Amino acid sequence: MHTLPRVPENEIRNRIARFQTTLQELEADGALITQNVDLYYLTGTMQNGILFVPQTGEPCFYVKKSVTRAEYETILPVQPLGRMRELGGIIETRFGSVKKLAIEMDVLPYGLATRYLGMFPQAEAIDISFPLRLQRAIKSEYELQQIKKAAVYVNEIVASLPGYLQKGKTELELSANIEHVLRLKGNIGIYRMRGYNQELCLGMVASGSAAATPTYFDGPAGGLGVQLASPQGASPKPLKTGEPILIDIATTVEGYLIDQTRMAVIGDLDPEMERAYEVAVSIIREMEQMGKPGVEWQALYLRSLEMAEKAGLSNHFMGYGPDQAKFLGHGVGLEMDELPILAKGFRQPLQEGMVLAIEPKFTFPGRGVAGIENTYLVTKDGLQPLTIAPEEIVRIPE
Amino acid sequence: MHTLPRVPENEIRNRIARFQTTLQELEADGALITQNVDLYYLTGTMQNGILFVPQTGEPCFYVKKSVTRAEYETILPVQPLGRMRELGGIIETRFGSVKKLAIEMDVLPYGLATRYLGMFPQAEAIDISFPLRLQRAIKSEYELQQIKKAAVYVNEIVASLPGYLQKGKTELELSANIEHVLRLKGNIGIYRMRGYNQELCLGMVASGSAAATPTYFDGPAGGLGVQLASPQGASPKPLKTGEPILIDIATTVEGYLIDQTRMAVIGDLDPEMERAYEVAVSIIREMEQMGKPGVEWQALYLRSLEMAEKAGLSNHFMGYGPDQAKFLGHGVGLEMDELPILAKGFRQPLQEGMVLAIEPKFTFPGRGVAGIENTYLVTKDGLQPLTIAPEEIVRIPE
Repeated sequence: MHTLPRVPENEIRNRIARFQTTLQELEADGALITQNVDLYYLTGTMQNGILFVPQTGEPCFYVKKSVTRAEYETILPVQPLGRMRELGGIIETRFGSVKKLAIEMDVLPYGLATRYLGMFPQAEAIDISFPLRLQRAIKSEYELQQIKKAAVYVNEIVASLPGYLQKGKTELELSANIEHVLRLKGNIGIYRMRGYNQELCLGMVASGSAAATPTYFDGPAGGLGVQLASPQGASPKPLKTGEPILIDIATTVEGYLIDQTRMAVIGDLDPEMERAYEVAVSIIREMEQMGKPGVEWQALYLRSLEMAEKAGLSNHFMGYGPDQAKFLGHGVGLEMDELPILAKGFRQPLQEGMVLAIEPKFTFPGRGVAGIENTYLVTKDGLQPLTIAPEEIVRIPE
Repeated sequence: MHTLPRVPENEIRNRIARFQTTLQELEADGALITQNVDLYYLTGTMQNGILFVPQTGEPCFYVKKSVTRAEYETILPVQPLGRMRELGGIIETRFGSVKKLAIEMDVLPYGLATRYLGMFPQAEAIDISFPLRLQRAIKSEYELQQIKKAAVYVNEIVASLPGYLQKGKTELELSANIEHVLRLKGNIGIYRMRGYNQELCLGMVASGSAAATPTYFDGPAGGLGVQLASPQGASPKPLKTGEPILIDIATTVEGYLIDQTRMAVIGDLDPEMERAYEVAVSIIREMEQMGKPGVEWQALYLRSLEMAEKAGLSNHFMGYGPDQAKFLGHGVGLEMDELPILAKGFRQPLQEGMVLAIEPKFTFPGRGVAGIENTYLVTKDGLQPLTIAPEEIVRIPE
């Protein structure tokens, strides 16, 4: 039936094995996994269903739709879901009694969670979200290969920018160009966020005053957007001479994202933006050295705050004033808001194999946003760039 | 700061007033609204925060980010959110004690819901999702205007199809063309679904055998997709002579969607597909007559099942065999899966002002999907089309 590439079998086996080790540590009898991205990660298929992973032994994927397609896409056992009210009994018959059940409390809606927990009236519920996200934060060689392919696509965009950029063209037109090229390369057109209500619009191309417009999005650069119904990203504002143009682009390969921001300017850049950009680059360089296994996630953010302060740019860092985002970077993988989170209060250590985007940016209301963003792999020697695009500002003659 | 159009003041006032009538009927002291689309509907802004709507009197929007932008975008009172743990006290001080609290149990994640309900330890929680969705199902004149503008854009796509369609071009290339044109018209690039895990990829262009590939998506036509990480919609399959090409397109105006499917063919269409298309059209004609206020939602679905059976196409209707979707149509507005739901078990009556898409489609594994979809307004005389594109199959000479 299909011609699309599948997730390799050993990937799925290894992921399930690591996840079961976590269930054992938590003394959970099993996990009921329902969210589409977690399902894809643990099974290799995103068909609609409920995965039960016991503490030991083979999991079972109970599929609502499409059973045919799930059977092709995953190596795990597939069963038709049947009547939901019978699922608890079916699971306990197959796997034994469930006294402690792990569910994804960060994404599973309250109504559904109540219904699922009702199927196991004897069970205590625990939240598996953070441990599962922590597992997902550490990438395998296969996962890194996908992100590296994505890096090639977003690099090609940067190389093409001189052809796309011209005065008077709108942010939306530039963004639509970029989106079109990435789509033809197989982008799925959806950038997944795990956080409730967080959405990522396709085009994070934002220039000058429009880029400095604050947004609901948990990120440093907002953007005006095209409708109040999606108030972020590219807007109908035309590109002007001398203002910073931020090109914050992602793409997906086998569901894996990369995140990269480059800056462009038509004519001569506002000198204050030029300086802010250099400060952002110096922060990135410092983080590359600091970002080693064992270092607390928050340490990178706190150091970047110090550097922004020393440069006299505290109030502009990661948004302006009350609209500042309180972080420096985020994990990247199947979702754009993965672990680690580089923010105050996160004392967890970096681990080898984590992939994260670091995005120091400075906002100047009414004028623009200057900054940079690379995606990195945590290695024992520090952060190794997965982003391959040159860092230099793309300068277009006026 | 902004130049984007705002939702008119009387819209927001009317929506809040209608919603408060519902709260009174349910004897709820207030509703805690958190989901971004519900927030946009009730406030006019999609900034990140929590809206408290009391049974009577002025609501208050407690905003996390961006307060500046929320103050501009909504006419309702805005307060900075501050510390979450204090919000319960702040709300009860302002609005009085909360004994019965309405929340959106269908979308609010379990972890967050538990936290929010913990702020009101004395309160009984009730689910406001269905009543709020029912209110949203009935569109105002302003809302209809947005959907009518969207109808113009998707009609233009159909008119341009002869220029886009050629043998050997891939589904993905055709889809990328269409997406690019719609994006330039201001499409936000996000098609919102309320259902857990439901996503709508941009390009629902699907042809021949690839269109007949089943998917997890709760819709009749699936599509292979470009990656297993988003297993639906346009695929790398090239367009071939004689097979049905389904062009299921949506776009957004001020967040409002329209949903429309047209069919195209290069050369002569497979006669069985031609016939299935005619049956789909006859179902649509019947529904236009039947769809009057007071008629049960399920009645339309059940009648369409009868018509499919009479045509000998039961097993092909809305997907094939075990992968059939069990519905005929759905409400359309700020989300693609709004009320009403035309499916068995839904005995609620159609109401004047509801907007819905009706999409009879027939799936033939290995060969293709044939069908049509229009968006309609429920009037006392039956369904009035909001879709303006001609229904004829777009025929491209070989």
